[in-house]
Amino acid sequence: MHIDQASEAELKEQLNDLYEQYEQLAERKLGLDLTRGKPGAEQVALSNALDGILGGDYRAADGTDVRNYGGLDGLAEARELFGALLGVAPEETLVGGNSSLTLMYQVIDFAMNEGLRGEDTAWALNDQVKFLCPVPGYDRHFSICEYMHIEMLPVPMLDSGPDMDRVEELVRNDPDIKGIWCVPRFSNPSGCVYSDDTVERLAKLPQLAGEHFIVMWDNAYAVHSLYDDAPALASIADYCRAHDTLDHVFQFGSTSKVTFAGGGVAFVGSSERNLSTLKAHLAFQTIGPDKVNQLRHVRFLPDRAAIEAHMARHAALIRPRFEAVLDTLERELAGTGMGHWTAPRGGYFISFDTRPGLAREVVDLAGNIGVKLTPAGATHPYGRDEADTNIRLAPTFPSSEEVQASIDAFVVCVKLATVKQALAAG
Amino acid sequence: MHIDQASEAELKEQLNDLYEQYEQLAERKLGLDLTRGKPGAEQVALSNALDGILGGDYRAADGTDVRNYGGLDGLAEARELFGALLGVAPEETLVGGNSSLTLMYQVIDFAMNEGLRGEDTAWALNDQVKFLCPVPGYDRHFSICEYMHIEMLPVPMLDSGPDMDRVEELVRNDPDIKGIWCVPRFSNPSGCVYSDDTVERLAKLPQLAGEHFIVMWDNAYAVHSLYDDAPALASIADYCRAHDTLDHVFQFGSTSKVTFAGGGVAFVGSSERNLSTLKAHLAFQTIGPDKVNQLRHVRFLPDRAAIEAHMARHAALIRPRFEAVLDTLERELAGTGMGHWTAPRGGYFISFDTRPGLAREVVDLAGNIGVKLTPAGATHPYGRDEADTNIRLAPTFPSSEEVQASIDAFVVCVKLATVKQALAAG
Repeated sequence: MHIDQASEAELKEQLNDLYEQYEQLAERKLGLDLTRGKPGAEQVALSNALDGILGGDYRAADGTDVRNYGGLDGLAEARELFGALLGVAPEETLVGGNSSLTLMYQVIDFAMNEGLRGEDTAWALNDQVKFLCPVPGYDRHFSICEYMHIEMLPVPMLDSGPDMDRVEELVRNDPDIKGIWCVPRFSNPSGCVYSDDTVERLAKLPQLAGEHFIVMWDNAYAVHSLYDDAPALASIADYCRAHDTLDHVFQFGSTSKVTFAGGGVAFVGSSERNLSTLKAHLAFQTIGPDKVNQLRHVRFLPDRAAIEAHMARHAALIRPRFEAVLDTLERELAGTGMGHWTAPRGGYFISFDTRPGLAREVVDLAGNIGVKLTPAGATHPYGRDEADTNIRLAPTFPSSEEVQASIDAFVVCVKLATVKQALAAG
Repeated sequence: MHIDQASEAELKEQLNDLYEQYEQLAERKLGLDLTRGKPGAEQVALSNALDGILGGDYRAADGTDVRNYGGLDGLAEARELFGALLGVAPEETLVGGNSSLTLMYQVIDFAMNEGLRGEDTAWALNDQVKFLCPVPGYDRHFSICEYMHIEMLPVPMLDSGPDMDRVEELVRNDPDIKGIWCVPRFSNPSGCVYSDDTVERLAKLPQLAGEHFIVMWDNAYAVHSLYDDAPALASIADYCRAHDTLDHVFQFGSTSKVTFAGGGVAFVGSSERNLSTLKAHLAFQTIGPDKVNQLRHVRFLPDRAAIEAHMARHAALIRPRFEAVLDTLERELAGTGMGHWTAPRGGYFISFDTRPGLAREVVDLAGNIGVKLTPAGATHPYGRDEADTNIRLAPTFPSSEEVQASIDAFVVCVKLATVKQALAAG
């Protein structure tokens, strides 16, 4: 039954019933955790062969001894492999350490404090610097902005990606806006894949937004399909070439959710001009990345086909967890008006929206019975989800049984909070 | 014969002879390189067992799955092992990625722009920030300062380390001085080991220099003895504890010249308070270091004894190269007044001083016959060696034969430049 059609008596009966279920859950003293976008133990084990794969052969294809110093760009074959994933040439690719977040931080840091086109282009010379943040989004993107004193302007996410009408209107009217964060495929947390039209409009955006505007294209889930029919993402690099804006787009990726979350390889793709600037800055803080680990990765996953076969093994492990969540939500909440949610074809998250004003309460209710959820608000800049509706669900790390138990408990919390609210509203 | 005792006729005869030798060298079309403080191929091969050492066991002692995310501090057993090398507790140690230079950059960056004791302590709030740079020293330290617009004040290196009378006088009279760079054991490039008295005076220096002064203690060659009788380095951490200055000292180290130069593990030791501040900043740019590689290192070199046995194998490889250089310098130049040099008991470098005004010319002469030397001036801030005397020799990377050929040619260049100068002076 839809909650709006329930009588007060029916709501009261439901409430009693839900309190009872909630108490039973409390007695089970659950210790569950749906907060983390982490691969599970079986997933990381898929890459156990990485350690030892070199078999004593530490020479790259061009003869480079990967054990020794040097090579700020990363290994030639790693640049070729990961550049291809981003749709850019090896010369347009820099392969770094284990963290794409670090590469993103560095790009923003250098653009802010040193200037991507020389000292007089440093954003910090302006009184204000603003970034567009599609919401819901990724809290670590927001944290970088907050740390750098960049003002964040939320823009709504649609099924096709950021609301481009709004984005274009904003940048047209505010020259302080210097960038936008994007997770274009299987977005964190909605799971949407940006439409071709959205990708092209983002590639053209610098023409509206001005000379020092950049698109931060965090393609963290580029190859992370759950189903063979998962939507493809258009190549922003191709659109950039067509519109002469490659200087304004930084693409990021990593193998954190391909091989080892903590011991993978991260990469950035952009114009050769941008990479040359980036390297000039990077040279002050490092002699070069860990090329041994880069060589391991290239040997383990030599080409696109190997990566896709490997990702299919990941999908087989996590698809049942996503389906457990989605089946339960569908069975328990569809048609009730108690919430709506996304059904991603890939990535690591499901985005759930409660009725307005209930996200925080649902997260608290779940926490009180031992089911940890991502804090409400975390998907919004400054932790401010004004409508208090969005909750990010991350089903990959717990076991299938734990995922099922967590989502069962979650559903009870959603219902309880919603029925309470309905009764209070009278 | 000492050059000052040679008659003009004798000098002219020597000059002719030297030109002849120089021409003969030129005809050999040498392609030699003494510039790089890099381990040789045989050295890095000593650690080939690193890859594959985990044998599928990716669990740290405390059960941590090193393949997954998390742990900004680094692995517990890595903190214990490398902390002990620095003379600090595991809680006073952070183990990071493959580059100690990165850790140094981050400490300076955060102290400059964010403040180690809160926003109002950021050095950047001052009109001027200055650092003491013992010379000759390491060019990458100087580069960080230059990048950060930190004014560098050179102070002379003695056999006992920096000239502490001068250092104390400078910090007493100039509150803009916020730090000092130190390579305390087998200093780059002189190879000297700081005396106990120098280490204690450096540990006490913050008491003279003020609240926001830090000692950057780059102990890059902590375990890099060439001989069993190599001088030990006093523990600065012990002195800091005695004088309550641990908040003012950051110690750095890495396995770059222990295992793989490009694929090792770097670490920083300081007070828990400092590390806590550092982590608060670091959290914005990374989720954590590559713990897989840390575990490899701890398995490969589980304790101090294993590290020392391993370093003895390095010493056996590079000692003959150092001895080839030193024996040749001794045989050819001792007593001639044409230069003086250090005879380090460890580390990666030999520091050579020509007569004033000749370093650049010697480097050019050598370069013109295919013997590449570190550019003259590189061992001084801003590349300014006012006396133009210092040349850094790095004998580890080339083969023994190449080292011998290089130093033979070097000696001819030194003699040629010196005799020419003596004749010109009349």
